Amino acid sequence: MTRTETPWRATILTLYPEMFPGPLGVSLSGDALARGDWSLEARNIREHGLGRHRAVDDTPAGGGAGMVLRCDVLAAAIDAATEADDSRPRLLMSPRGRPLSQVRVRELAAGPGALIVCGRFEGVDERVIAGRGLEEVSIGDYVLSGGEIAALVVLDACVRLLPGVMGKAQSGIEESFEGGLLEYPHYTRPRDWEGRPIPEVLSGGNHGAIARWRREQAERITAERRPDLQAGSKSITGPSRS
Amino acid sequence: MTRTETPWRATILTLYPEMFPGPLGVSLSGDALARGDWSLEARNIREHGLGRHRAVDDTPAGGGAGMVLRCDVLAAAIDAATEADDSRPRLLMSPRGRPLSQVRVRELAAGPGALIVCGRFEGVDERVIAGRGLEEVSIGDYVLSGGEIAALVVLDACVRLLPGVMGKAQSGIEESFEGGLLEYPHYTRPRDWEGRPIPEVLSGGNHGAIARWRREQAERITAERRPDLQAGSKSITGPSRS
Repeated sequence: MTRTETPWRATILTLYPEMFPGPLGVSLSGDALARGDWSLEARNIREHGLGRHRAVDDTPAGGGAGMVLRCDVLAAAIDAATEADDSRPRLLMSPRGRPLSQVRVRELAAGPGALIVCGRFEGVDERVIAGRGLEEVSIGDYVLSGGEIAALVVLDACVRLLPGVMGKAQSGIEESFEGGLLEYPHYTRPRDWEGRPIPEVLSGGNHGAIARWRREQAERITAERRPDLQAGSKSITGPSRS
Repeated sequence: MTRTETPWRATILTLYPEMFPGPLGVSLSGDALARGDWSLEARNIREHGLGRHRAVDDTPAGGGAGMVLRCDVLAAAIDAATEADDSRPRLLMSPRGRPLSQVRVRELAAGPGALIVCGRFEGVDERVIAGRGLEEVSIGDYVLSGGEIAALVVLDACVRLLPGVMGKAQSGIEESFEGGLLEYPHYTRPRDWEGRPIPEVLSGGNHGAIARWRREQAERITAERRPDLQAGSKSITGPSRS
């Protein structure tokens, strides 16, 4: 670890703490966790459940299927997990949230850490969102069984940006990538494979021509696949890794 | 398991097979896995690596930082993991891919399963994508350290839709939800919490008024947060759970 300040600190509120660190305990993020470059605490919301059965949910007001996570239980869990001077953003993983972007990931990674609430059941009682200042975040327009895997996505995206987690080479790529475009195609040995050769320009050693070709390819792929990105409404920066 | 045919079958190609089933071994998806409602095999790409060190990657043709996953190694791994009559879609998790949607999730869940390739390093050699018919899929516009957690997202979204995995109540919600809108707010007991009461309409017992209120709330929230969804270009169907 190269920083002298407190490491980036993640606290997860979940009904399934055994899902963490899960895949984040392996590879670069796992090594970084073991080194203390970041910390992860998964807390069980059920510890603040009510009564003998530690109930955390109840039926929806106004009727309907499913169960709703109680605001009082979740607020108690949040309060117990945060100190008075805790300035970390508090995220609630939810498909109603603002779509996660690489810009928001960078902001989160540059901050002190994050508290992440993982919903289950039909949803959480709306009042706790304003009552505890939760920021609703969506990782995409699909439905998951809970917020836990979405939280793993947020953590993985943040942790790889922390100082010391990736090698220098990778960090360099991240910074030099020109924003707003999908990545150009990659090739490596063998030069010929099943009748498919590597594009000739890449073997020529003409660095200017290679850079132009890559830029053109990135523009072509982006125009074909994601015209919404070209419109400038969103921006992905960084190499192909999700 | 209620189906008589072969269960939904997932095969993951990864350099980190120990990341699976990870969080999918817990809760509803874990129970369904134990029951045999679906199967999961994580295979190590490195088993098809070259030479004494089982090399899987090499430097990018044309120069640049990072390493590229070799097409011959990945193709060998794919070939070993698939039978001649294997009709499963072959996904490659990549931010260059088509954004994952609930519509695609439903199609995948209705099919025989999926083979999912998890990239690492700078990317995979482009030629294997066409050479082995890979479908590039992105879970969102952010950068992850690898495709593994993205694969967990795809699997979780699919598995919860398989017959028998969720209770009947939940499946009912899924089908009755009106598409294209973010979800309305949920409330449950207590009726008053920290000076925040449950909206009066929800306690009145007027089902028509409740349905109208919920629809209005869903429309308001969608218009405020995701005007792109209202434009009809995308559609989320289902309850709040990611």
